[in-house]
Amino acid sequence: MNEQVKAYGLEEAIAAVAAHGSITEIYFVACGGSYALLQEGQYVVDREAKSIASFGYSSAEFLARTPARLGKNSLVITCSHSGNTPETVAATSYARKAGALTISLTNLAGSPLDEATENTVFYEWDPVAVTDKHNSVMLLLLVLGILQKLEGNDKIELVKKAVPALHEMGETLKQKYAAAAAEFGESHKREPVIYTMASGANHSTAYAFAICLLQEMQWVHSACIHSGEYFHGPFEITDFDTPIIILKGLGNARKMDERALAFAEKYSKRLSVLDAEDFGLEAVAGEAAEYITPIMFNLVLRLYAIELGDRRGHPLTVRRYMWRMEY
Amino acid sequence: MNEQVKAYGLEEAIAAVAAHGSITEIYFVACGGSYALLQEGQYVVDREAKSIASFGYSSAEFLARTPARLGKNSLVITCSHSGNTPETVAATSYARKAGALTISLTNLAGSPLDEATENTVFYEWDPVAVTDKHNSVMLLLLVLGILQKLEGNDKIELVKKAVPALHEMGETLKQKYAAAAAEFGESHKREPVIYTMASGANHSTAYAFAICLLQEMQWVHSACIHSGEYFHGPFEITDFDTPIIILKGLGNARKMDERALAFAEKYSKRLSVLDAEDFGLEAVAGEAAEYITPIMFNLVLRLYAIELGDRRGHPLTVRRYMWRMEY
Repeated sequence: MNEQVKAYGLEEAIAAVAAHGSITEIYFVACGGSYALLQEGQYVVDREAKSIASFGYSSAEFLARTPARLGKNSLVITCSHSGNTPETVAATSYARKAGALTISLTNLAGSPLDEATENTVFYEWDPVAVTDKHNSVMLLLLVLGILQKLEGNDKIELVKKAVPALHEMGETLKQKYAAAAAEFGESHKREPVIYTMASGANHSTAYAFAICLLQEMQWVHSACIHSGEYFHGPFEITDFDTPIIILKGLGNARKMDERALAFAEKYSKRLSVLDAEDFGLEAVAGEAAEYITPIMFNLVLRLYAIELGDRRGHPLTVRRYMWRMEY
Repeated sequence: MNEQVKAYGLEEAIAAVAAHGSITEIYFVACGGSYALLQEGQYVVDREAKSIASFGYSSAEFLARTPARLGKNSLVITCSHSGNTPETVAATSYARKAGALTISLTNLAGSPLDEATENTVFYEWDPVAVTDKHNSVMLLLLVLGILQKLEGNDKIELVKKAVPALHEMGETLKQKYAAAAAEFGESHKREPVIYTMASGANHSTAYAFAICLLQEMQWVHSACIHSGEYFHGPFEITDFDTPIIILKGLGNARKMDERALAFAEKYSKRLSVLDAEDFGLEAVAGEAAEYITPIMFNLVLRLYAIELGDRRGHPLTVRRYMWRMEY
């Protein structure tokens, strides 16, 4: 796998961090779906790093905050699929000017982001298939590769061993959840509001589903509720007809999801539950399984969104503002 | 003012941080409305600190993440109004066991949180009046007091000078916005979904309004949209009849709010705009005005919620789960 990965810039980016020698903090900066993606990486650093601090910001917020600490001990990881997101390109340029090391993930060589950054990691992305160059896979290998170099963390070995199994796992899950996705689409096609709920590694997955799949691609009202925050406000919105998609993760965060689900089950008859324990990730990734859950949740949730769009006669590709005007 | 503040534990807490001598990072940890409150403090540290890192976590998430870095160089600031929030008490105890210094904000002396923490800062809180012991005021004095001791930051002087003017400013704003709040309540009483949008210092204010005032206290569907993220998904939900409350802040973040508002104005006829420039904060707090905006937004938004509840025959004190059952 190493030979292939190298052509995508992954090994070079990790080597650049190691060569730099004094990175003590990592900023994860992007917009929308890419911001959600990078939060998967931030979660890993938070859980694993012994001494490296990590922060997540939406690109425009990062530019507005201009943290005074940002400088030569900072690594700024940015991401834009098209490489054209203006705020993310600007954030990358700003970070470089502040003396930070920059690594950017993108699908497009020669894009403004690829030009603006010091180190580019390219990825591939198919919303309905997992490959070993998948954006989440590349990000996971990047952050764990960095933690291996800087702190001797060895979780990357577990992930490298698991990656070749992920494509097949994804194909199996697509079959396994096809009927449930179709049922979700049919039974939710008239819902004006659909909530998503998760925590830990999957909180940003639920966020992405709420803002990109439901709000953006379906024009369906949505909000992402954090399973741990549910009991401190949002749970009062729960009623027999409140639709909530609940993601049950792995690892320490799982108990938050379980508690929220146990409560929601008592008062809503409109829950859709996806449980990472049904994915078979622990068998292939061991203690790193938690970090791979967003990949499989994103895949299964995509099926749900496609079926919803199909039943609503509203394909996921339709927009009313994006691609249609300047803003 | 110092004499009074002392009785509330503020000076002692700041002195404890100074005496500790090696705090390099601050964790802000709480649940729901208190979590939103603490994010006001995290914003200040992010913008002002030259070398101190800061992080915000919902208490349950903090307990699940158990960041490996947490230790004797960490300050953990927690908050619970009643002092009884179990996850926040547990997070405080966990932080102490990990060797971190703890400071907790609460309204209630002798509460479990007061017992669990090393340093307590007491505050007062009236949802429809600002006092110089207001929770946000005490938090602001705490974090700026810490930054003064550790880094020589002098913004606290601006805030100390401004605090005595805040009560009167609040009373004036209540009169100024009374008619607008009543109009909002009447015109939104049949809305099933009301969005909130803000950024920077006020993002957590919009979050609190969405999850505590609308979801929890009104059972109205809501989500907090970040003004900078708006263009990366959520803006597609905008239509002529999409109600959005937009907070225009001060400082660097303001341009995000302005851009979002300029777009939303074109396509929605249901916007409610609150502009911090109308509050008169810059005249009393100068460069620290941005940090006080959440106090005034919270006050004015409370009026909006009270009027909405009145028109809907649903007082803000009504709950269907909280106070009625174990969960």
